[in-house]
Amino acid sequence: MRNMAKKAAKIYLLGGGPGDPELLTLKAVKVLQKADCVLYDNLINKEILDFCPQAEKVFVGKSQGNHLVEQEQINLLLQEKGQQFSIVVRLKGGDPFLFARGGEELKFLLEQGFEVEVLSGISAFAGASASLAIPLTHRDYSSQLIVLTGHKRQDNNYQEFNIDLTGKTLVVYMTVTALSQISQTLLQLPQNKNSKAMLIENATLPNEKIVWGKLADIALLAQKNNIKPPALLLVGEVISFWQHLPRST
Amino acid sequence: MRNMAKKAAKIYLLGGGPGDPELLTLKAVKVLQKADCVLYDNLINKEILDFCPQAEKVFVGKSQGNHLVEQEQINLLLQEKGQQFSIVVRLKGGDPFLFARGGEELKFLLEQGFEVEVLSGISAFAGASASLAIPLTHRDYSSQLIVLTGHKRQDNNYQEFNIDLTGKTLVVYMTVTALSQISQTLLQLPQNKNSKAMLIENATLPNEKIVWGKLADIALLAQKNNIKPPALLLVGEVISFWQHLPRST
Repeated sequence: MRNMAKKAAKIYLLGGGPGDPELLTLKAVKVLQKADCVLYDNLINKEILDFCPQAEKVFVGKSQGNHLVEQEQINLLLQEKGQQFSIVVRLKGGDPFLFARGGEELKFLLEQGFEVEVLSGISAFAGASASLAIPLTHRDYSSQLIVLTGHKRQDNNYQEFNIDLTGKTLVVYMTVTALSQISQTLLQLPQNKNSKAMLIENATLPNEKIVWGKLADIALLAQKNNIKPPALLLVGEVISFWQHLPRST
Repeated sequence: MRNMAKKAAKIYLLGGGPGDPELLTLKAVKVLQKADCVLYDNLINKEILDFCPQAEKVFVGKSQGNHLVEQEQINLLLQEKGQQFSIVVRLKGGDPFLFARGGEELKFLLEQGFEVEVLSGISAFAGASASLAIPLTHRDYSSQLIVLTGHKRQDNNYQEFNIDLTGKTLVVYMTVTALSQISQTLLQLPQNKNSKAMLIENATLPNEKIVWGKLADIALLAQKNNIKPPALLLVGEVISFWQHLPRST
């Protein structure tokens, strides 16, 4: 299947979904099955790689705190593999265009003359919402969804979280490290005082783990229950829905 | 396959994705293939029904302006089919838990004693973002995604759209009818003056149609180009990315 020395590879930025391999799209599986080379990172469930036994697999996992340098290295690796193979897949957790640096990779690859196609995947927040039976919006509770990233800010500035949560559902990716600063910033607004929060690790997977309670307590709950990054923070009245179903975790 | 007079059916609230049938998940296809009855609405691409030739198909499309009564009727129909069959699917466009009344159906069905499972689908905004090569977030342009619905408000109150768009990407579902009021509300904030906007009809489908320009012009552009509901409004600097790729529509 490999077509060496071909110049104009097609490169797919492909969403690997929230974790459960069955939440891949039909199109994603088709592309994986014809891939010559797949570059994947540490948010990818390894079972997904069973869809492409024929492909060369390259691990390009990132460690926190050194993203800029590493993104450049990933770009160069994509370029190298694009020159070597015909069909190259950049496999990302969730959706490539939601807090996944897909835009930067797209721009770089187009500038290098590659044909690029982007395939959406189910984001972690949507997968978690379904698996926990918590609607993201609901006429009586929430008419707005806000999605942010909670990675630790170098300048310790979390003012982006100065959000009135009334009638909203807030989703925060990559929250564990800065959870205390984020919840404190949200709690600076008195109307957020009684907000409900839930932290979800390994959403949609058999080892899915959650803690939930008042926003004011969530950082302590996460620590006590040893929730590990990456985890997803969900804040809003919709969390009360979770009580309608028996715990599946 | 039909198992009449069985009492405790399993009912799936299933996300049919943004339009392209290949953007269904593997799990969704598996469930459709074993369904006895599928209730679908007018946001569903009919090709998706080809995955369940064995099932009874029930159209439960809604017309705008009469949602409350109709939702009650859908609930009762789900109950009736749940008493008649073993595996019933409520097939929804996009994701069942994002502006799709999934929470209300879930609560009703659990109260009636049915076993319910929710399966996430790719939302229209994510499908559109990938097919148009517009990242939803990007380090240099947007660190926040906001998702709202633009259905016409009875009270003509659009203050929910009083949003400073700086560093944000805004997605508005079902925007066509109230597009003028929504863009005018957004433009009340001087910092939104030069915002870019795009309106997308039939995202991810072969007949995908877009118009784009300044937020101040988008309502007129939509009218001139005869964009029909339901369409998706995207607002933010990330739209400039669309220029990096040739038009695929």
